[in-house]
Amino acid sequence: MEARVILIATTNKHKIEEINEVLQSCGYRVEPAAASKLEVQSNRLEDVAAYAAIQAYLALQRPVIVEDAGLFVEALGGFPGPYSSYVFKTIGIRGLLKLLEDVENRRAYFKSVIALAHSGGVEVFTGTVHGVIAEKPRGDRGFGYDPVFIPEGSSKTFAEMETQEKNKFSHRGKAARELCRWLRQYGPPR
Amino acid sequence: MEARVILIATTNKHKIEEINEVLQSCGYRVEPAAASKLEVQSNRLEDVAAYAAIQAYLALQRPVIVEDAGLFVEALGGFPGPYSSYVFKTIGIRGLLKLLEDVENRRAYFKSVIALAHSGGVEVFTGTVHGVIAEKPRGDRGFGYDPVFIPEGSSKTFAEMETQEKNKFSHRGKAARELCRWLRQYGPPR
Repeated sequence: MEARVILIATTNKHKIEEINEVLQSCGYRVEPAAASKLEVQSNRLEDVAAYAAIQAYLALQRPVIVEDAGLFVEALGGFPGPYSSYVFKTIGIRGLLKLLEDVENRRAYFKSVIALAHSGGVEVFTGTVHGVIAEKPRGDRGFGYDPVFIPEGSSKTFAEMETQEKNKFSHRGKAARELCRWLRQYGPPR
Repeated sequence: MEARVILIATTNKHKIEEINEVLQSCGYRVEPAAASKLEVQSNRLEDVAAYAAIQAYLALQRPVIVEDAGLFVEALGGFPGPYSSYVFKTIGIRGLLKLLEDVENRRAYFKSVIALAHSGGVEVFTGTVHGVIAEKPRGDRGFGYDPVFIPEGSSKTFAEMETQEKNKFSHRGKAARELCRWLRQYGPPR
């Protein structure tokens, strides 16, 4: 059976690959859409993703997914949180590790929000993974902060894992499995 | 002559005081409006302020000002930039100084954008001030990163200056003077 296609408003190949690894189990796959993504500035990832998905749906007039994720470091008051991508592009992993020099509490969590906008409204699926920030980057897979995030239950960083293994632990894998559940229950979005 | 009132979508008393110190020279003052501020996530302050001002105008049906500002640190790739307020609330001045430990290049600039939305559209006024990040916080006036910003032409931080002196140098003072110029030329916004 051929997988049904849902559009996703991203050009991040890693995100697409990770989500597709999960969605194949329910007979779907995502493909990038050329929609500009209007992001609202909010401390809630849910708001950012839902709003962007609605905007993309209005532009495309087809069901569309937006995924937004953030890394929340406990000792830094949740920083970089909803602005993880901007922070990654400016101070990067090096800056993050500098902020955590001599900081004992390395606890952090990743959160992913998948928003699916369709003719019936917008559905929001979330996934969270707790873990710690490594002392040094390890691994070359994945993207973003993956080289310094070690999820609970593993001694590897996300960047040391294949997609399938990362998805077992990851925030994005969990959110994508929630999306699968919804698709199984309600069928193809329109 | 009594000053004409323009609404401003902020609850930050420092911003209001600084803008009013300039606006009195052209016969206006701003007063806080109870409009929720929808911020778009953009790397351009102009977009954030203009969009928020339009939203506030639509909600209030009266001319309204939004001021948005950011601190751009050269050695940090422009960080914290448009997310200065969020970064201040999480890692704070302490985090910023930690990122700059052993960094020789302390150059930074503050930028302020004042957007005025009215029945004729939206006007955007900007002001920039170049300077350096101090080694340690000094002074207790102002707000945000003021204790660590030393503008070119002074040896004081913004937090060591009275409002009037800060306005002579500051990004916000410059943007407010641009607004004054516009108000003198076009009269009260409707």
